[in-house]
Amino acid sequence: MEKYVIGLDYGTDSARALVVDAETGDILGASVKHYPRWMKGLYCDPKINQWRQHPKDYLEVLEFIVTDALSQCAPDVAKNVVGIAFDTTGSTPAFTDESGTPLAMLPEFAENPDAMFVLWKDHTAVQEAAEINAKCKTSPIDYSMYVGGVYSAEWLWSKAMHILRQSPEVAAKAYSIVEYCEWLPAVLTGVKHVKDIVRSRCAQGHKAMWNEKWGGLPPEEFLAGLDPRLAGFRARLFEDTSTADQPVGHLTQEWADRLGLSTDVVVAGGAFDCHMGAVGAGVTPNTLVRVIGTSTCDIMVASYEEIGDKCIRGICGQVDGSVIPGMIGLEAGQSSFGDVYAMFRRILEWPLRNLAGLTDEELEKACDKILPALEKEAGKIPLEESTMIATDWINGRRTPDANQLLQGTITGFTLATTAPMIYRALVESTAFGTKAIVDRFTEEGIRIETVIGIGGIALKSPFVMQTMSDVIGRPIKVCNTDQACALGAAMFAATAAGVYRRVEDAIAVMNSGFSKEYVPDPKRTQAYAELYKHYQSLGRFTEENLYR
Amino acid sequence: MEKYVIGLDYGTDSARALVVDAETGDILGASVKHYPRWMKGLYCDPKINQWRQHPKDYLEVLEFIVTDALSQCAPDVAKNVVGIAFDTTGSTPAFTDESGTPLAMLPEFAENPDAMFVLWKDHTAVQEAAEINAKCKTSPIDYSMYVGGVYSAEWLWSKAMHILRQSPEVAAKAYSIVEYCEWLPAVLTGVKHVKDIVRSRCAQGHKAMWNEKWGGLPPEEFLAGLDPRLAGFRARLFEDTSTADQPVGHLTQEWADRLGLSTDVVVAGGAFDCHMGAVGAGVTPNTLVRVIGTSTCDIMVASYEEIGDKCIRGICGQVDGSVIPGMIGLEAGQSSFGDVYAMFRRILEWPLRNLAGLTDEELEKACDKILPALEKEAGKIPLEESTMIATDWINGRRTPDANQLLQGTITGFTLATTAPMIYRALVESTAFGTKAIVDRFTEEGIRIETVIGIGGIALKSPFVMQTMSDVIGRPIKVCNTDQACALGAAMFAATAAGVYRRVEDAIAVMNSGFSKEYVPDPKRTQAYAELYKHYQSLGRFTEENLYR
Repeated sequence: MEKYVIGLDYGTDSARALVVDAETGDILGASVKHYPRWMKGLYCDPKINQWRQHPKDYLEVLEFIVTDALSQCAPDVAKNVVGIAFDTTGSTPAFTDESGTPLAMLPEFAENPDAMFVLWKDHTAVQEAAEINAKCKTSPIDYSMYVGGVYSAEWLWSKAMHILRQSPEVAAKAYSIVEYCEWLPAVLTGVKHVKDIVRSRCAQGHKAMWNEKWGGLPPEEFLAGLDPRLAGFRARLFEDTSTADQPVGHLTQEWADRLGLSTDVVVAGGAFDCHMGAVGAGVTPNTLVRVIGTSTCDIMVASYEEIGDKCIRGICGQVDGSVIPGMIGLEAGQSSFGDVYAMFRRILEWPLRNLAGLTDEELEKACDKILPALEKEAGKIPLEESTMIATDWINGRRTPDANQLLQGTITGFTLATTAPMIYRALVESTAFGTKAIVDRFTEEGIRIETVIGIGGIALKSPFVMQTMSDVIGRPIKVCNTDQACALGAAMFAATAAGVYRRVEDAIAVMNSGFSKEYVPDPKRTQAYAELYKHYQSLGRFTEENLYR
Repeated sequence: MEKYVIGLDYGTDSARALVVDAETGDILGASVKHYPRWMKGLYCDPKINQWRQHPKDYLEVLEFIVTDALSQCAPDVAKNVVGIAFDTTGSTPAFTDESGTPLAMLPEFAENPDAMFVLWKDHTAVQEAAEINAKCKTSPIDYSMYVGGVYSAEWLWSKAMHILRQSPEVAAKAYSIVEYCEWLPAVLTGVKHVKDIVRSRCAQGHKAMWNEKWGGLPPEEFLAGLDPRLAGFRARLFEDTSTADQPVGHLTQEWADRLGLSTDVVVAGGAFDCHMGAVGAGVTPNTLVRVIGTSTCDIMVASYEEIGDKCIRGICGQVDGSVIPGMIGLEAGQSSFGDVYAMFRRILEWPLRNLAGLTDEELEKACDKILPALEKEAGKIPLEESTMIATDWINGRRTPDANQLLQGTITGFTLATTAPMIYRALVESTAFGTKAIVDRFTEEGIRIETVIGIGGIALKSPFVMQTMSDVIGRPIKVCNTDQACALGAAMFAATAAGVYRRVEDAIAVMNSGFSKEYVPDPKRTQAYAELYKHYQSLGRFTEENLYR
């Protein structure tokens, strides 16, 4: 009897389902759907970087993508599905009631953004992050030591504290907090009390300062000391966390019916998209897997021997088992990557939208051509004529050394500056941001032998990828699949369902291979090493001269 | 009998003729024509900032604009024209033969850009300027002391030295050097030998280090010491210079016939456009006149008592009689002003030109709307939300403290950056550049009571002008005429022809008055004072970290 698994990847704008043959890695069906409320821009305010998602968005797309992906497969596939696993964005937490239900699912909070999931990129909690960092530095134990030494506004405690202050009505009802990647498995397995939600090692270790070393979450006096409104939450949250290869339960009858599956299906633990994506891309020690989209998430795994007792400075976290059980998962990333190009695209859209007299259809067509045309033209500019320098921090800097307040800078404007020259500088800036991360890992003793790229930009932008390879002076392999995250989820589903003993075994069989390898040109690497110094000094200047 | 004069203003792209009633200042006829070869882009190479103009371009438009302007007047006007005067761009020098003819007028050099006039904004001589500056600093006398202490790549000796090195065939034939504003009066008065060309106090004092204090041009040993190729030129150039209120001669029969005028017409001495423009705008002591176009030229006059023996640090020059005879003319300016906006316009034209599928006519229409639309949208952004900072040095910095190597920088990019936000920052950067000049004059003891704006931007861009007024914290008056330079030339023509005893008398009668006054908002002035500090520190950083 053949065995199939379903990998579910919940991204920023849409969710994907992949039906995979667990014994070959062959992909048999795939489906994707955008979140309906999110796509209308509801509950968000770009001006203050408020990004919220309604829990109903997640559930409503689930039934569609699973049944749609299964409908592409032979009729017997559905009944031989043995496992299902979720990865989601994160840290994307929501306050829940005692049953573990996000408050926005309750009628009285249905339209309250503060009762919804606070999306990873929401930056409303900058002030709270600063307070957490200040307290970490004056506590006997610096609880941020395993998350790079800087706690981010994008993470659970910052967001929770901000909403408790911001929204007394949510604070009055809030019983506990759940991460998105924990909630979906809990819903499908029929969890009735928040205490029974299986907690994600990946999410809580990287984003909530959970660590075995200090017995789980930071102690009550630390949390209540941040803000009395946080008092009591620690006891109502959890003590233990699980790695995502462990089953959390089986499908309820209701969800088995809705998805067209059996109640024997094992639901695996949840984890963040990039962490499962790294597994889907075939991560091994000394391999940096970069999920390259609007931002990047950079994942490595290291053995206990390699890391020892060391804290890696200025990355987003090091957590035992967050990627592959039995190894330390390391996370880093750039807060903006594709978003840097998207910003420039939006600037260039302005004349098209406002002055060209185009129909909606012509406008959309013209706008869609901007980045491909820039990519083509920028690639023609010889490196020695590319003398603009930019920093990539238009959404702050995630690693190395998180600082949400940073902004982007472009220097080298002359009478002859053109749009492709600016684009080229922006591409180089994102590659320099990559080098800063690679260099930090290396300086901290984590050897990088191989770089693997996954995500839209890795597949679609040869100029961006070649520039990155030249700047970091290392080859970059690109995964054969554009669905590495969902494929990684399928690997976890297969492991949780017992098809494989270890995640590594699933990787060995189910990996998709590589479609392409970018090889650095040593001359360009040398030239970029010089320009990188200017990137660094421009960066230092803007960091030391923040003006708002 | 009524008396009329013709003011001729030779700008970067075109020349204008104004027929003016010398006794009232009334403008009776006006005509403008673009230089034909220049408009085709001939002899120029934007990539290396090589900008050359063919002398034939100047002569060919002259007959058209004078006869066209006269054709708009009553029939008796032409025969009652008593004077004619030229202003031109500068320093725009050319090598000549012994007769004073620019080499490009000779058949064998007709297509050689190095035999043509080297336009003010040509930057091919950056290296030579550096050598001149180094030599000035180690000479017993610093000959750059009255041109701000920094000799520019845009000026006569840098350009001459560069071409002598660059072009052996031009060097072999070159006998002397003439400025454009000296050559046109010489042609019209029939000068047959370069020794008889009347030399412009304005041009030679500001751009060739001519000063009475050291007996004229810098000594032979200084010039030949710069480069042996310069040896001998000093003796073949000139000793004396004249102010532009002095007649240089009368029209030759040939030119009287071609222009439809009599041979009694007095031709005045030539000067630079902005200097005559300042007169046309009604300059008086303690008034800063700004000619605001692609770049700015900032002119003041000061009495001998106010200046004394002082050298004003870091401006473009202080020359006795360069603006108004009997006063010290002071020149400063921004190397790019409207060009800063034009650069951004060109960047935004890129998607319109390449991706929108517009006809030529639609394209031109859309492109022409860019700056007005940006001006409108940028004005709506509240100052407190305008948090990007830019420097205006996209073509180097002219004053204070010339440095041609500087480039522009924009900082403060975020996910929410829009085209109007960038434009606003660019407008503020040009206003900050203005403040740097105003502050320098003030620090050096030159009091500024009134600011007068002339030129295209002063008349057409209320947002730019209001921002400038707010940033410098001073009212700015805008001249009633868009032809202040040509009107100033007409005032010199009237003075040279004896209608007035002094240029000041011509100003008192012939001035055009003011159409508008911008008044600073004290709150915005205070807010900008803070932002200006960031402009300064960003500027200092980029100046100290040049990377090419």
